[in-house]
Parts: sequence; C-alpha cells; structure tokens
Amino acid sequence: MSFSKISDGLLACIAGDAELAALFSAEADIEAMLQFEIALAQSQAVHGVIPVEAASAIEAGLRGFALPSAKLEAGVRRDGLAVPGMVALIRGMLDDKTAGYFHFGTTSQDAIDTSLMLRLKRVAGIFVERLTALKEKLERLRRDHGHKPLMARTRMQAALPITAGHRIDQWRIPLGVHAARLDAMQQAGFPVQLGGPTGTLDKLGDKGGAVRRSLAETLGLSDPGRCWHTDRMFLADWANLLSMVTGSLGKLGQDVALMSQTGVAEVTISGGGTSSAMPHKANPVNAELLVTLARFNAILSPALHHALIHEQERSGAAWTLEWMVFPQICITAGAATLHADKLLDQIDFAS
Amino acid sequence: MSFSKISDGLLACIAGDAELAALFSAEADIEAMLQFEIALAQSQAVHGVIPVEAASAIEAGLRGFALPSAKLEAGVRRDGLAVPGMVALIRGMLDDKTAGYFHFGTTSQDAIDTSLMLRLKRVAGIFVERLTALKEKLERLRRDHGHKPLMARTRMQAALPITAGHRIDQWRIPLGVHAARLDAMQQAGFPVQLGGPTGTLDKLGDKGGAVRRSLAETLGLSDPGRCWHTDRMFLADWANLLSMVTGSLGKLGQDVALMSQTGVAEVTISGGGTSSAMPHKANPVNAELLVTLARFNAILSPALHHALIHEQERSGAAWTLEWMVFPQICITAGAATLHADKLLDQIDFAS
Amino acid sequence: MSFSKISDGLLACIAGDAELAALFSAEADIEAMLQFEIALAQSQAVHGVIPVEAASAIEAGLRGFALPSAKLEAGVRRDGLAVPGMVALIRGMLDDKTAGYFHFGTTSQDAIDTSLMLRLKRVAGIFVERLTALKEKLERLRRDHGHKPLMARTRMQAALPITAGHRIDQWRIPLGVHAARLDAMQQAGFPVQLGGPTGTLDKLGDKGGAVRRSLAETLGLSDPGRCWHTDRMFLADWANLLSMVTGSLGKLGQDVALMSQTGVAEVTISGGGTSSAMPHKANPVNAELLVTLARFNAILSPALHHALIHEQERSGAAWTLEWMVFPQICITAGAATLHADKLLDQIDFAS
Amino acid sequence: MSFSKISDGLLACIAGDAELAALFSAEADIEAMLQFEIALAQSQAVHGVIPVEAASAIEAGLRGFALPSAKLEAGVRRDGLAVPGMVALIRGMLDDKTAGYFHFGTTSQDAIDTSLMLRLKRVAGIFVERLTALKEKLERLRRDHGHKPLMARTRMQAALPITAGHRIDQWRIPLGVHAARLDAMQQAGFPVQLGGPTGTLDKLGDKGGAVRRSLAETLGLSDPGRCWHTDRMFLADWANLLSMVTGSLGKLGQDVALMSQTGVAEVTISGGGTSSAMPHKANPVNAELLVTLARFNAILSPALHHALIHEQERSGAAWTLEWMVFPQICITAGAATLHADKLLDQIDFAS
Repeated sequence: MSFSKISDGLLACIAGDAELAALFSAEADIEAMLQFEIALAQSQAVHGVIPVEAASAIEAGLRGFALPSAKLEAGVRRDGLAVPGMVALIRGMLDDKTAGYFHFGTTSQDAIDTSLMLRLKRVAGIFVERLTALKEKLERLRRDHGHKPLMARTRMQAALPITAGHRIDQWRIPLGVHAARLDAMQQAGFPVQLGGPTGTLDKLGDKGGAVRRSLAETLGLSDPGRCWHTDRMFLADWANLLSMVTGSLGKLGQDVALMSQTGVAEVTISGGGTSSAMPHKANPVNAELLVTLARFNAILSPALHHALIHEQERSGAAWTLEWMVFPQICITAGAATLHADKLLDQIDFAS
Repeated sequence: MSFSKISDGLLACIAGDAELAALFSAEADIEAMLQFEIALAQSQAVHGVIPVEAASAIEAGLRGFALPSAKLEAGVRRDGLAVPGMVALIRGMLDDKTAGYFHFGTTSQDAIDTSLMLRLKRVAGIFVERLTALKEKLERLRRDHGHKPLMARTRMQAALPITAGHRIDQWRIPLGVHAARLDAMQQAGFPVQLGGPTGTLDKLGDKGGAVRRSLAETLGLSDPGRCWHTDRMFLADWANLLSMVTGSLGKLGQDVALMSQTGVAEVTISGGGTSSAMPHKANPVNAELLVTLARFNAILSPALHHALIHEQERSGAAWTLEWMVFPQICITAGAATLHADKLLDQIDFAS
Repeated sequence: MSFSKISDGLLACIAGDAELAALFSAEADIEAMLQFEIALAQSQAVHGVIPVEAASAIEAGLRGFALPSAKLEAGVRRDGLAVPGMVALIRGMLDDKTAGYFHFGTTSQDAIDTSLMLRLKRVAGIFVERLTALKEKLERLRRDHGHKPLMARTRMQAALPITAGHRIDQWRIPLGVHAARLDAMQQAGFPVQLGGPTGTLDKLGDKGGAVRRSLAETLGLSDPGRCWHTDRMFLADWANLLSMVTGSLGKLGQDVALMSQTGVAEVTISGGGTSSAMPHKANPVNAELLVTLARFNAILSPALHHALIHEQERSGAAWTLEWMVFPQICITAGAATLHADKLLDQIDFAS
Repeated sequence: MSFSKISDGLLACIAGDAELAALFSAEADIEAMLQFEIALAQSQAVHGVIPVEAASAIEAGLRGFALPSAKLEAGVRRDGLAVPGMVALIRGMLDDKTAGYFHFGTTSQDAIDTSLMLRLKRVAGIFVERLTALKEKLERLRRDHGHKPLMARTRMQAALPITAGHRIDQWRIPLGVHAARLDAMQQAGFPVQLGGPTGTLDKLGDKGGAVRRSLAETLGLSDPGRCWHTDRMFLADWANLLSMVTGSLGKLGQDVALMSQTGVAEVTISGGGTSSAMPHKANPVNAELLVTLARFNAILSPALHHALIHEQERSGAAWTLEWMVFPQICITAGAATLHADKLLDQIDFAS
C-alpha cells in the first residue's frame, strides 16, 4: 500500500508483478548502468577514443565490484540521482590512469536512460509473451463457449441476442493488436542514449556517432542517430501503450464483474474471493482488480505527458517525475496480465 | 472559458483554433453523419441489401434538408445523443417505403463514430501541414541563428557552451517525428464504423463485410475488417499523439520563456504582451501559453484511457466522456501550433 | 463538444448548465471587472487616494459604456488576457484627468480574480440551493419507497437484505454534507483580490489595507487581509468540493444504472433514452451521464493542483490553466445536479 | 523507482519519507486492525452484545499473536484483501466459544477503514508539526533576509522592485494556512468505521450506535453517527489537502530553482547536487524535487475523486484504488516537507 518495503508484501499480492518489479529494482538498474559503462569503454576503445587497456581495466575492475549501498544512498540524497556518487566510488577503486577513462565524455543521463532501455527491452518481451498467451486462452474460451447464447447489452440494458463468442472476440482482438504493436515497437528497437553532458558529445570529437553506433550494437539496442536527452516521447509512447493494455484488460474485468452479478449470472466464477462476514459470497476479485488497475494506469499516464515539458538541456524536475511513475505503469500493466490470466481460468459461461 | 458561446469568444483568442473548432461543430458533425447515411444506403444498394431506388430517394431527400435545431436538441436531452431524434425526423420526411430503408441495419454509434473519423481525417491533414511548416520555420531559424553561442543549462544551471543551433534542433526534431508519424497514421487510414445495434451486423445477413468495404471506399476511410464499437484504442492513440505534439511545443514554450527572462536574455521577443500596470513590460505570452496548453492536454489525456473501460456492447458513460474531451484535445493541440508559429516569428537570439 | 459556439448547442444538452454558463460568459466576466473598477475607485476616493470627482467620473463614464468586442479580442491575442486592452479603451474614453485615476495602483490580476470571486459567490448560492432541493427530493423518495426490500450488493454480488431506504440514505447524506459545507464556505466569504502589480499595493502608500477593506465591503466580498495573487488554494479547494459533489452524484448514477439493468430490475426508469435501432429500449441516460460527468471532473481536478506551482509574483502559464479548467468544473458539477434532478423524477423502486 | 523492495531504497532517498512510510507498512496496518478488533470486542462487551469473558479472551489471545505472512498473503491473493484470511487465522487460534464472538457483526471494511483512520490521525500530527517548523524557519529567513532588495517577476519578466521578505511571505503564509487547517481537521476528528456487512449493523440490534460510540472513544477517534462505507469524501478531502501542501511547497521549489539560475543569482544554494560530468555545478536538487513531488501528487489526486463513484454497498474496484494511491499521496507530501526543510537550510539571498 505504500513505498515501504513490507506493505509492498501485501499490496503486491493484488497490484504487484514480481517478475517486472525485479527489472525495476535498484540492483537491476545499477547492473544495467555498469553494463552501459563497460560497453561504452569498449566502444570508445574500438574507435580509439580511449586506450584498449583502459577499457579492459574498467571491465576487469567492475566485474564483481559491489557498490556499497549506504554510500550510494548518500549520493542520491545529495545529487538527486545515483550516478555521480557511483562514478566517484568506481573511480576511487580504479587505478589513477584508468579512472580518467571511466565514464569518459558521458553523463548521468546517458547511463540512466540507457539502463532503462536495456530493461524495457526485457519488459517488452514479457508483455508480448503474456499477451500472446492471453489471446490464446481467449481463443480456447471461444472454442469452448463461443456458441452459447448471450444477450447483448448496450447502455447497461438488454439489446438483442448475440453469442458469447461475439463478446469474447471483443476481449481478444485488442489484446492481439497490442501484442502485434508491442512486437513492432520491439523490432523498431530501444534507442541507446549517448549525448554527454549537454547532448553534443563534444569530448568524443568526430567519433561521437561511431561510438554511439558501436555502443548500441554491443548492448543490443538501436542507434537513434541522435541524442534524445530532452525528447521524452519514446517513454510517453510506451506508457500510453501499456496503459492501453491495462485499459483493454479493464474492459474484460468490468464485463466479467457485470456478467457474474447475482440476477444476471451470465458467467460463474470459481474460487472467488471470500468475505469475512458473509460465507455465501464468491467475489469477482480478479475482475474488479482489472478495473482498479486500468483506472490506476489511466490516472498515472499524464505524468509522461507533463514530463515532455523538459526544459533546456536537462530538467531534474521533469526527469525525476518519470522515475516515480514509469515503473509503476509497467508493473501495474503486468499485474493486470497476471490477474486476467487467473480470471480466464476461473470463469464459466452459463448455457 | 466555458461551454457558453460568448466567453468562448475571448478564451478562444488564446486557447482556440477556429479551423479545427469548425470541424467539431454540431453542423460539421451532423453533415458528416448524413454523409455516412447516404453512403451507407448507396453501399447497401450496390450489394442488394436495399433497393437502388431507396438509396436514390434517401440521397435526394437529404440533399438540402435542414434539421430543426430545437427538435434535435430535445432528442439529445431525451436520448443522450442526436441520432435517434435525427433518424426519426428524417424518416418522417421520407415517404413510407423509403423510410424503412433509411438507417437500415445500423445504429447511432456507426453514424457518430464514422462522422468523427471523417472529420479526424481532415484534422490529421491540418496537423501534418502545420507541423511541417513549423519544422521548416525552425530550419530557417537554425540557418539564421544556429551559429550563435549559447550556454547549455542542465537542472536550470549553466552547464557548458553549446550553440543556439543545438537547442533549436531539440525543438525541431520532435516536430518532424510527430509530422512523420501523423502522416503514417493518416496513410494507415481512418476506420469506418459499421456494426449495427450490437456489433454483429445481423440485419445485413452475409453482406455485412461487403457493405462495410464499399462504405469505407465511398467515404475515403479504411475498412478495419471488423466493428470497433467497444475497442476505443484508436482514439486513445490519437489523443496520445496530439497531446505529445502539445507537449513538445510546451518544451519550446518553456525554453523560450526561460531564455527571455530578465537577466538571462538569451532571446528577445518582439511584440510581447503588454501589462495594465507596467508599461515597460513585454511578456512572453505565446511562450507561456504553449506551457499552459501542454499541461491542459496532459491533464485531459487520461480520459481516453478511462474510456477504454467500455462495458459490454456499448457504454453510454464511457462513450460520452470521449465527446467531452477528444475535441478539446484536438483544438488545444491546434492552438499550440498557432501560438508556436507566432512565437517563432517573434524571437531573436542574442549574439 | 468543443470550444466552438454551435456544437456547444448539442453537447450542452447533456453536459451543459445554462444558468452557470451565463456566469462564466465573457459578458459576465467583463461586467464584474467593471464593477471591480468602479468599486475600487470609490474605495480609493473614500480614503483620499484619488479625488472623489475622479471616482464619480469613472462610474459615470462606465455606466452604459459598451466595450468593442473586436478590439478586446485583439488585446487578448496580444496580451494573453483582456485587461490591458480594456483599460486602454476605457482610459481613451475618459477625460485625461480622470484617466490617470482609473485602474490606479491595481493590476490585471486584481480585476480578473475579483471578478471570478463575485461570480463564484453566485455559483455557490446556486449549488447550495440545488443540493438542498436534491436532498429534499431524496427525503421524499425515502418516505415513499424507503420501506421496500432491496438486496444489498457488495463487490457486485448479493450480500444480505436491506431496504431501499438504506441505499437512498447513502445517496442523500453526502449531498447534505456538501450543501452544509458549501454554505459554510459561503459564510466564510469570497476574498477580494487587491495587490497591485507585484502584490505589495505600493502605490496606495499606507492606505492599502483600508482600501482593500472598503473594496471588499462594497462588493460583498471578504477581506483576506492580504494579497493572494500567487496562493491559489482557494480555487483548488472549490474545485475539489465541486468535483466531490459531481462524484457523489456519480455514485447515485452508477447505482441507478446498475439497479435498472435487465435481469436486476430493482428500479424502473420512465422516459428513458430511445435507441435509433432498438425500439424496445429505455436507456438510463441520466444515470450514465452522472457517471460521465463525475469522471470528467475527476480528470480535470488536478489542473488546480498543478496551478499551485505558481512561480514568482505572477505565472501566466499557471494562471491561464485555471481559466481553461475552473469554469468547466463548475458547469459540469452544475450539469450533474440538473441530471440528478431529472433522474430522481424518473425512477421507481420495485416492490 | 518501483514497488519492489530494494529500488525503494534509492528512490526513497528522493521521494520517500521513512516516518510516514512506517505508518503505511503492512505491519502498522495489521497492528491497527487488531487494535480495532480488540476495542470492538470490548465495546460490544460493555453494551452486552458479547460476553465480557469473550472480549477478555480475544484481547489475551491477540496479545503477542504473530500472524504468519505467507498465509496472510495467500488470503490477499484469494480475497483481494487481508481481513477474511486474518479473521480465519485468529478464529482458528481462539477457543471455539470465543471464536464466534471475534469480528462479531462487523466486516472487512470496518477493520480496514478504521485502521486507516488510526494511522491518518498520526499522519496529521506529523504534518502539523512539520509545517509549523517550516513556517518558523521561514519566519527566521524573513528576519535575516527579508530586508534585501529583490526584483519582482511577473510572467517571468522583471516587474518592479520588492524585498525578499515579500516573496518569503508568499511561501510562508500558505504553509500556515495548511497547518491551521490540518489542525482544525484533526480537532474535528477521524471517524471510526462501523457498519457491518452492509452498513446497517443489523447483528448489533439496537446497540449499534452505542457500540460505535464506545468504539470511537476507546480508539481516540470520532463518532460520525453513521456508517461511511460508500461515502469516501473524507479521504478525497485529505488527499486534496495533502496535495495542496505539496503544491505550495512546489511553488517554493520552483521559485528557488528560478532564483538560483546562472545569470539570475538571486539566491545561492550551498551543498547543491554534484554532476558526474561537470565538476563546477551545484544543482538545486531539493528545489527541483519539490516541483516533481508537487506534480506527482497533482497527478495522483484525481484517484480519490474517481473512487467516489463507489457503487452499491461496497465497491472492490473503487476501494482498492484508494489503497494504491492514498499512502503514496501522504508519503509524497511528507517527502516534500523534508526536502523543503533541507532547502531552507541551503539557501542564501544575494544582497
């Protein structure tokens, strides 16, 4: 129910997603930032920006290096982000000659944004897989129950007879569209971030573009051909897509909650939630949660649009807002796929 | 400042867009709905669903037919939308034989959603044109001022020297991306809506798909291959895109407002706003407005995500919410393009 | 459906409120601003800040003076607000001696904010009256139907038997609380705005506080004892309250829409909305609209919280955002009271 | 940056508040729910609803009873909330005779809402204290720097000379208003929740009101004189107030960030954030964070308005949304007070 560790334990049971949360943990973030730093040194070495030995020493130094949490946290408190403190700690651990080549010509934002892209790539893969599985489950549902009669309802009133299959189609088709689109966005790639302090890569001289290309290739990311420090539409777009996924699942949840109402009984739900006071009840908990999660992501989604007003060459205010919201949107969308999966196993259509 | 007619007169000077507002007027809406009805009758006649004479009589009857506003408004008050009243008025005007073929096998939502698509197609064209013009204006600005020195600012503090060109690029590039993307979405087409009362096109028998294809072709829309009554992601996507356009222009506005501050003076603004109390002032009104409009659209944008929770075969609650918000998002994004255009004519960079 | 004049005609049938919209028209705004200017001159004359003759000449000059719309609009386009142009037009109409005493020591924000307070006072009165009437209508409903049995529903499932009266109470009580609270806020008063260009009332010397007190008294407003140019919590508070009113009515609408579902039939709705395709339908249009309006106001409400980030002595960006949103919130809440009133006349409880 | 435990470690450094987070932990929640259950049994015993021995046995049984996390979590997964599982576990631990008197006549919502009120009472106390301290710190700042000259800025442009004191007043006054208002709301009390399964307290016969009064008194809460299961305006109100607190601090942050700009230099910030790439920088991190936190709370605040659409006698969808948002709003407002405190220690005004 809050940012605090333990309450997450309970709220995470209904609004969490352990697999996705792991990708947004500080460890995963830092690991990906170190991966960026190593790949950057290697790419710079390839193009003669730093000596090959420096790149090797950086990689060797970072392998197995454990960053002390307390010092990292003190850095975040002072700087508003982890990189300056992290860079200082690592430089202190490297020999003097190598230290100067570490984090060379780059800046905090390159490390943080690239770290996010590395992890978002994995997030996207998870969603493509889960949405495809949900789509298949809905195809099976249609095969088994699609022929059953159902009264269409418009504006909450009985309209004309349809079949269960028609309604199941309306649940399934958007998920297929989302999966296809996520897949296409995945194919288009996740752009590496490399701009240096002000987005101009000045310190890399005429090697900036080449280093960025090599870096992208090494990390399995795409080369956007430019620095996107201040152009945050990629994140706004992903947030939009994941909130739409949650919204489509919210429609499924709302429909099932309505269909399972006492007196309507178009579907029955097995294993529904129990009540502390009314033993006869079987609550459509997963259906309701899908509505909750859809509203939550709808509510959070404007944050990424506010964050587009990213002033000058770097806005601490706008950028930090992304950190507070983007992981929550991903995890909430993920939680929705998990609850949808459970719900589809629970429902049975009346004949 | 409100829904009322006259106050729009003043607020429209800063937050309006006459060209776009005209496309969202009731007249434009009704005209497009009648265009849908005529094209539907013609398509149904082509496929033998209704007699050719009926289609001709419908077209002839509607040509020059003026719907009485007061009766339309009474219908909206009773039904929550204009179509049932409009259909009754038109049927009353047609001869009995023809009347039964009017609005045959279709439903309010087909007319309303298709009307919106017809107009959104024109909206998209306007945006592609305006964004391209803004991009070109920024290219000229870069040519004229790009070489001038500028101090990069990160987290609101001086960072390292760049050129004005670098910052202008950050304003220009997103607009080019938006224009290209709007153009691609335009190429992909605007989907006709045809589903009948419950989305199944039952009354058209086996001619449903064929009629929908013909209808799309006649209207210059695309055939989505299905009914999308309850799947509102197309609108959510467009709202996201237009709010991102507004957000990118908001960054331009925020930057210029900061650059023109007394004591910073990186740009000067000619023809700035005057003050009622301080004759010496030249306020960066257009720059500030870009920020206001970006925040406004960010605030409105979740509506289209809430509207994805569209229950059963038609949700009056969710659908009506779209009507209250979608035109405002389009017009606000349009107003932002107009103010950006004015602002770019006003600014001069310090040498 | 948009800012444009005519479409308002149709959308206003379901989301408008003519009485409230009139209070947010440009005419009402300008009239209240002129009322402010006259009262200010009078208060300044009382305290010897300007000559008594100047105040009389200002009042005489303004009586019956018609501001030319086109010039006003041109001013808004240039300045981002109407006051500088309006003041110049009025000064041009007054004799030279008087002109210098017009708008003396004050600024646009004083006129605009005070104008809003004058009208918000009337808005509040309308809401107290309407909410009290709704509460009484619900009391009658309880008297007539409260004894009827109803199945309580929790998490959309039958829980245990209650009476209709219990549910009606849950609709009624919050409205009474809102009415009482609006009444208390009304008693606490609507603060006059008077700060001059920078909030310090410098030009009024040691008479600032006395003039502000007289001004408040003349206008029937309260004296906040300070300038609140940059402290916008009063508006955030009112927006919160009116959005809560809309939310409480949204619960009523959602309940009735659920109760009137085919198969549930706990209430019947007379005069429901008709369908263009299904003559048998009676749609719970007013109930659904209450849900739409509640979501709309919930979506708009954060604007007033963003507007709290009102930088320095006056933020054009934050202040203009209020103008785009605040009237809409009031009118939407007003529309909800109108639809609730209609809905309560339409419903009948099953025995 | 996410719900996950460890990443909280880093994000909590900039957006967390350990003292408040502890009050929203699962442990604190469960402890307060058990406090509710004990006090309820005692109140029921006082009024003869259950035997005095049962109340004593319940208290004795719960003292030192450790609920097994894994079982609790399994219950949350099944039921969507912790209470049914918790009640079953406790009943299993009590002797059979006592078990039937445990959680007698009450329901999950009574326990959960009352638990929140018990903790919100402590939250409110923390805010009153911190806001009062901030106000005092601003009074000292005014005493020390208030006489210094400052150029007022309106619409981001130099207006007329004021003093630093005038601007400091605009920061201070709203905090005093918020503190006074929180204090008044605290005096008005935090309403106990007691309604039983459907809000009617049926099982308590004619003792419902008396038990609720005793329960309130025992717990140090107020007696609302009714059940407020479905009337969520109390939470919407608190969220509004805490988001306004964050907004007022956001204005402070925005002002300081602007004042400390290179070229403006109206304040200097000691101990500013360092950069990984630009050693000369001292970033106004705490000022920027105040803006971020204000935007975040503005974005979250509509959730409590959406949650007002709480259908029938209990909405799982709407209620769960509160749990996802309300603690975050409190903690974010708390984080803002902490950063404001640090910021005020860091700033110095130019002479």
